Amino acid sequence: MQEINSMNNPTIKHVRKLQQKKYRNQEQEYIIEGFHLIEEALKAPKRFKFLLGTKEALDKLVANPELADLLNLNSSKIIQINDSLAEHLSQTVTTQEIFMVLPINQPGTYSFNYGRWVILDGLADPGNVGTIVRTADAAGYNGVVLSPYSVDIYNAKVQRSMQGSQFHLPVIRQDINAAIASLKENDIPVLVSLLNQNAQSVFDYGAPAQFAIVVGNEAHGVSASVIEQADQELYIPITGKAESLNAAVAAGILMYQLVQVK
Amino acid sequence: MQEINSMNNPTIKHVRKLQQKKYRNQEQEYIIEGFHLIEEALKAPKRFKFLLGTKEALDKLVANPELADLLNLNSSKIIQINDSLAEHLSQTVTTQEIFMVLPINQPGTYSFNYGRWVILDGLADPGNVGTIVRTADAAGYNGVVLSPYSVDIYNAKVQRSMQGSQFHLPVIRQDINAAIASLKENDIPVLVSLLNQNAQSVFDYGAPAQFAIVVGNEAHGVSASVIEQADQELYIPITGKAESLNAAVAAGILMYQLVQVK
Repeated sequence: MQEINSMNNPTIKHVRKLQQKKYRNQEQEYIIEGFHLIEEALKAPKRFKFLLGTKEALDKLVANPELADLLNLNSSKIIQINDSLAEHLSQTVTTQEIFMVLPINQPGTYSFNYGRWVILDGLADPGNVGTIVRTADAAGYNGVVLSPYSVDIYNAKVQRSMQGSQFHLPVIRQDINAAIASLKENDIPVLVSLLNQNAQSVFDYGAPAQFAIVVGNEAHGVSASVIEQADQELYIPITGKAESLNAAVAAGILMYQLVQVK
Repeated sequence: MQEINSMNNPTIKHVRKLQQKKYRNQEQEYIIEGFHLIEEALKAPKRFKFLLGTKEALDKLVANPELADLLNLNSSKIIQINDSLAEHLSQTVTTQEIFMVLPINQPGTYSFNYGRWVILDGLADPGNVGTIVRTADAAGYNGVVLSPYSVDIYNAKVQRSMQGSQFHLPVIRQDINAAIASLKENDIPVLVSLLNQNAQSVFDYGAPAQFAIVVGNEAHGVSASVIEQADQELYIPITGKAESLNAAVAAGILMYQLVQVK
């Protein structure tokens, strides 16, 4: 373990700068914060670059024997910091004073030769993207594909909404047309979710064992070029006066309805 | 129409102070912002206290003939403001420069003698509460009950997430035990959503025609005293490694599954 108490320390400067997307992309590292996310990362187990925390926070972490076994406390990768440095690094209102730096390791291509997938076509809201990854994990999907125009998943808000689900299933950043080509090569049907009453109600649809479901941008829906390639258009019926559903809620209803876990 | 260009004008000071919960409660008024919400309010139609906007924004609003008919442009309740006042009143990143002040008119008691209801037991996140009201509207529920410990729906973030659904169905603020007593008197069963694998899977449950479904606080779930009074405990199966679902997503899956709109 090492101890750092200065904001001017190069490691602290580096960790703080990981709050910026441009710097994350350059360094291919990102930061997570809080006990729950760090516990999930340790259980994954991911090779981390740094674990930083106040004395109290580090003590609390290793008080869990399951986690203590995964940590070598003598490692210089574990850094004790003081309260004001924890405040300086935090991106939350009430910090838990514990942080981890991890390598970005996001697949850019993937061979979709089995399974159930969720494809996000240009989603813009960090909370929606994180929540959809978390729901895909809960509903037993094999992974999530984000188009390059979707929000960056290493953003602190996406990380908080994912609740560690990125350690349970792959979140692939790939051009949607390339993903669809791979799905079609493997005879996995592509379903799209539309706000269109003429599409098939998802509650009347018998889903195949393997498929990919595409969810569109909050304002503009699924891209026309993706709809053209779809094997099935699906719709969530709206019986009240609301014009639409929130994208994360719509994705959750679709994901659960299509797998019908009992 | 009147024209105001000073921050020190008493009406502007009043409108701006409505951003504070305490002042909203005292005045029994609240503020909404943006074309979509204001259009929904005008269509409701709600008696508004003030409609404020820049010249461009007011022109754009009345360019919709359906709305122009609902507005008396000679009324002193319509106030033209300049760009800097619009910026001063805005609670969004990019303001649409149009605002409306409405009376708070939230039922505090209700007789639940028919229908399908959603009860929110102490929900804390404004986005979750707003999104659940929007989903209840979409799925054709009769209304939403918020416990007094749930977040204030006149908060700007709740208003944005509701997308105007508060103009389509009642959002009642009532003690949950009183609501449950009224439901039981009317033989309407109370269902509770639990994160408990021993409860009944909602995907295996044949819901009655009328019911109330209770969704619990993000961290603590449904209160023990409410669970005790439940007619049915329900569970959304989790097959992956996620520990739980986001509260708004869970509520959406439940609400749609229980009504099975085709």
